Amino acid sequence: MGEEETRGLQSVFRQKTPSPFRPYVVLEFAVGAKQPAIEWMISKLQASESSGGADLEVSAVVMTFKKQTVLYIGAKNSRLLTAADMTGLSKIYKDNHYREFSIEDMANFKGIEDVDSFLTTAEKQKLILHEMEAVRASDEEDHIPGYDKIKLWTGKSILKKYLSRDIITKMYPLHEPEDLKKLGADWYQIKRIFKEQPIDDIRHYFGEKIALYFAFLGYYTIALIPPAFIGIIYFITSWQSMYREAIFAVFNLIWATIFLEVWKRYCSELSYRWGTIDMVSSTYDEPRANYFGTLGENPVTGKPEPVFPKWKRSFRFYCVTVPIVSVALGIAFYIMLGYFVMQEWADKKYASEKSWVNFSVLYLPTVIYAVLIGIVNSIYRKVAKKLNDWENHRLQSAYDNHLIVKLILFDFVNCFISLFYVAFYIQDMALLRSHLAALLITQQLIGQVQEAMVPFLFLTRRKKQVDASMKKQDALQKVEYFNGEVTEEVQKQAGMESEMEEYNGTMDDYLEMFLQFGYVFLFSSAFPLAALWALINNVTEIRSDAFKMVNIFQRPFAESASNIGAWQVAFELISIMAVMTNCALIGMNPEVRKLLPSDITAVNIVLIFVAVEHIILAIKVAVACLIPDQPKWVEIELAKIAYQSKLALQEKHVHRSESDKEKIDALLKEKSQ
Amino acid sequence: MGEEETRGLQSVFRQKTPSPFRPYVVLEFAVGAKQPAIEWMISKLQASESSGGADLEVSAVVMTFKKQTVLYIGAKNSRLLTAADMTGLSKIYKDNHYREFSIEDMANFKGIEDVDSFLTTAEKQKLILHEMEAVRASDEEDHIPGYDKIKLWTGKSILKKYLSRDIITKMYPLHEPEDLKKLGADWYQIKRIFKEQPIDDIRHYFGEKIALYFAFLGYYTIALIPPAFIGIIYFITSWQSMYREAIFAVFNLIWATIFLEVWKRYCSELSYRWGTIDMVSSTYDEPRANYFGTLGENPVTGKPEPVFPKWKRSFRFYCVTVPIVSVALGIAFYIMLGYFVMQEWADKKYASEKSWVNFSVLYLPTVIYAVLIGIVNSIYRKVAKKLNDWENHRLQSAYDNHLIVKLILFDFVNCFISLFYVAFYIQDMALLRSHLAALLITQQLIGQVQEAMVPFLFLTRRKKQVDASMKKQDALQKVEYFNGEVTEEVQKQAGMESEMEEYNGTMDDYLEMFLQFGYVFLFSSAFPLAALWALINNVTEIRSDAFKMVNIFQRPFAESASNIGAWQVAFELISIMAVMTNCALIGMNPEVRKLLPSDITAVNIVLIFVAVEHIILAIKVAVACLIPDQPKWVEIELAKIAYQSKLALQEKHVHRSESDKEKIDALLKEKSQ
Repeated sequence: MGEEETRGLQSVFRQKTPSPFRPYVVLEFAVGAKQPAIEWMISKLQASESSGGADLEVSAVVMTFKKQTVLYIGAKNSRLLTAADMTGLSKIYKDNHYREFSIEDMANFKGIEDVDSFLTTAEKQKLILHEMEAVRASDEEDHIPGYDKIKLWTGKSILKKYLSRDIITKMYPLHEPEDLKKLGADWYQIKRIFKEQPIDDIRHYFGEKIALYFAFLGYYTIALIPPAFIGIIYFITSWQSMYREAIFAVFNLIWATIFLEVWKRYCSELSYRWGTIDMVSSTYDEPRANYFGTLGENPVTGKPEPVFPKWKRSFRFYCVTVPIVSVALGIAFYIMLGYFVMQEWADKKYASEKSWVNFSVLYLPTVIYAVLIGIVNSIYRKVAKKLNDWENHRLQSAYDNHLIVKLILFDFVNCFISLFYVAFYIQDMALLRSHLAALLITQQLIGQVQEAMVPFLFLTRRKKQVDASMKKQDALQKVEYFNGEVTEEVQKQAGMESEMEEYNGTMDDYLEMFLQFGYVFLFSSAFPLAALWALINNVTEIRSDAFKMVNIFQRPFAESASNIGAWQVAFELISIMAVMTNCALIGMNPEVRKLLPSDITAVNIVLIFVAVEHIILAIKVAVACLIPDQPKWVEIELAKIAYQSKLALQEKHVHRSESDKEKIDALLKEKSQ
Repeated sequence: MGEEETRGLQSVFRQKTPSPFRPYVVLEFAVGAKQPAIEWMISKLQASESSGGADLEVSAVVMTFKKQTVLYIGAKNSRLLTAADMTGLSKIYKDNHYREFSIEDMANFKGIEDVDSFLTTAEKQKLILHEMEAVRASDEEDHIPGYDKIKLWTGKSILKKYLSRDIITKMYPLHEPEDLKKLGADWYQIKRIFKEQPIDDIRHYFGEKIALYFAFLGYYTIALIPPAFIGIIYFITSWQSMYREAIFAVFNLIWATIFLEVWKRYCSELSYRWGTIDMVSSTYDEPRANYFGTLGENPVTGKPEPVFPKWKRSFRFYCVTVPIVSVALGIAFYIMLGYFVMQEWADKKYASEKSWVNFSVLYLPTVIYAVLIGIVNSIYRKVAKKLNDWENHRLQSAYDNHLIVKLILFDFVNCFISLFYVAFYIQDMALLRSHLAALLITQQLIGQVQEAMVPFLFLTRRKKQVDASMKKQDALQKVEYFNGEVTEEVQKQAGMESEMEEYNGTMDDYLEMFLQFGYVFLFSSAFPLAALWALINNVTEIRSDAFKMVNIFQRPFAESASNIGAWQVAFELISIMAVMTNCALIGMNPEVRKLLPSDITAVNIVLIFVAVEHIILAIKVAVACLIPDQPKWVEIELAKIAYQSKLALQEKHVHRSESDKEKIDALLKEKSQ
């Protein structure tokens, strides 16, 4: 780094960062990133809000021989509290209810006495992220300094541009080693395998969204116990009745609804406890940082923001996305058909002679099928992501939900279409059972092996990380600090975490659970042991997921959530679809048909099963209506909050004094005269 | 009336009612009601709120020779405004949004300059009713003076007791003759038959609940035009395709969903315009005046109110109501069965010979059936009302909804069970068509005749009313006034309205519409002309209902409503049920079956129709999801209100000044040091 550049970097800092400086978030610039871009970012992060900056504390470390600049971001308490106020962060009020934090009313919030720990680290990191992302380009700032070709649009997030164009390559909040160690001990250790997860601690450290995923996974695992138990009984006893499958299927169908409804209650308890229950996305929420459009104003708040006409989004969705997705689903379907044709051909030709060559040819179709599906799937995921970006949804929740639907649709077709084909077109129960078992157990075994390898991977990776950070330690000898020192300990920690894998959100984990739910409930009458397999899998899944969160991944920024969103709907849809598939399976079962009077016509048999299907659906709807979505106590607490804020808004008392009344009378006389 | 009594009545009045005195509500005591009870009521109505009274203006007229006392109730403007504030009445704020009226902020509400007309007469009457009903018995007041046996419970409404024990026989708000004349002219005159109803004026005069009924009736009538049009085309053209019924049925099924969804949008527009859109019943709403229980306190507000354990209500509902209703439904079913058996027997025995005797015997079963059902129905309605009272629902809305469900269930079975029996058990399409046409047309003809008689009845009744009021005029000669004169004109008006019929709410009108909707949509493939009959009926129905509201009935107290409540659900359920009935009807149609390939098995035919049913249901669900329940502009306006009140509650601005920040810093330093 030339002297000129160094002088530039030095001159950027407005004021000395106080010592000791506690950094919360790390930004790593690309090796060789242009100096003016670095300086501009630093000045933006430091500048006061009124001049369009983020008003944060920044310390820069320049590793001279690597030509890389790393920024450590912190913030003053006052800055964090202002941000908490502006973003409407919920904190516990003196009456033990959550309220949106307010600077003016600050003294009435619990824990404000110790102002350093009033906000959790996760909250501080989230607020810093929000403030960094909120730095937007003004009219004159039409490109990133040093990169003339990288254009900026008025009102778009500058940080997002740096990230999408890889000028900043990594951005991560720092772990808290001690808290993390404690959390890990409570969470994934073997001796705790039958204990509840420390959900509140998880939320405290990782935020509500991730905590809700683990809560749901744990809850769903417990809900699998009764079906698994029945599955075991069926497996070990010799009770061979024709009612077997029917009883099991009906139990499962009703059970799925009860489970999903009771989860809603439990979820509302959690989100009440965490102060996120009345978090509803609304027209006046801020748009996503990547939302684009011509600059207009929000019809509700009147604030300037990008405007993108709804018809354009609808056009893109219905005229581009829907056809493309349909084609992809069609391709998956035809690949499946091709597989069955190939398999049939291979069976005919090679199954008669038993030789090693023939045996491997017999498995060739399966291998080709798996490879093809893998390729199509990875292409589809990229396309789906691009399409979803291009649809340009205004709110993060809408964006997430549309992406979830796209992924679910494809994975659903991918995983279940062959089962549907076997069950209802080929109509071969034995084949369905073996096919289902093969799919479920293979997927789970692969998953288990992967997850058993996690600690092993962890060890090798940790070694790499240590090596890398050793190198950086060498580098530390040749480091320049700007604006206050960052302790060597923090630099070592950051160096280590920089090499860790980035956590990609809960999407894939939910998807895995969703497919498993489908395997267990859609064809439960064909394969009652599915629930047991799923249960065994999930017990270890929880712990290995936990281990990954604690040891493998970079710390993710905490995100709020009041429920599991579109996933609730997805699971409910599967549970409704399961009624149809199971009724059809049982209706097609020749064993069951023997039960009916022999003189009954085939038509009436079908009508009976249609009637049964409608009755089970009606029962499910009734169960869903009869189980309230919130426990009574949550409902009362929420009503109390609403009542109190109504009173506060009215600022008046029911028993008005006589003197008040006289005043009103006087006012009225005045008016009417 | 003895002199002593007169003195008693005189002494009750605290202060002279100002002249001119404008009465809004009339209370008529029973002839010969005990004097202490009358005096107590007057003193309660006059007493200040702090001493447990209603603080209203009361004038008494005693018709000496009839020994009857009539109270005329009015209120000072200041009293009405205080009541509006306390009950949270919505009025238009200076920003053209509805807000809950607030005395302190009074000057900012629109129209407050003219304080006499700021509240509409309907609102004043509603407020006076609320205040009168809110007078509750205290601990010491354990019976009504003069009636030792009529016990009062602490906290129960005193007025309700007077009404239920017939000490007060009539209570009605007074009409406004001029407004009413204008409303009638805009509403039901023949020349206006194709014009829109003056919905806003109706709401202004009768309140939101009645206005919503007429809005829905009008809207539903317009929605009948397309199916009626198709019905006519089918009737006049000779197009005899096997697709006929199927096309019509599918159109009708989708149309029903579109209609119900678009109604929700229109309804939300209306309720936004009327300021009732965010009216949700909540745990802290006041209980119904007739709600009873041991005195406890509201868990939300902490105010004293009767408490009735939920398990008791559930017990009464599931263990008493459900069995009784089921038995009633069973009885209706067996009466129907008996009818068919009798009819068959009569047909066999007497249909061969054609004589007058035989002919009348042939119709005997129908007559007996009609009479029996009539009897069972009237008994059931009384029982249902009693059961509903006894279930003791806390909120008026819960009470209404439970009563609606009870009545709907019975009427549904009563009207449709025979159609289901013919369609799916006897499976005779021709009989179904004639039976359906007979039921629909008979009911409508009876209704039309009744309604055509309305003006005639009106004339004879008006004559009676005039006679009665003439008698009262005689009485007026021998009348004693207490506390300010009531003009002779008002007394004449009250005398007339006292003789008018009491309006029993919208329940029966909705029920009639509900059954008609069932006839039109449940079996539309069997009788496409049903929609036309319904349309013709409803065009006159609107006007005759309007005529009755204006000329026949006492003015009802205005009630608020934001939607049509349980009726929306009831109509939606019918539209879902219609999918099943119509698919079954078409599937059973031999004409349609000819369309399918001849080598198709009977089982596959059934499966095809089951698939069609599921697809139509899925389309309906998709349509319901895709049509938003609120128009975009209403959503934005509501978001604006929410945003503004959030800002107001926070009382802060996004761009906080630097000086503010310094203050916070100072505070923080203070705290952390």
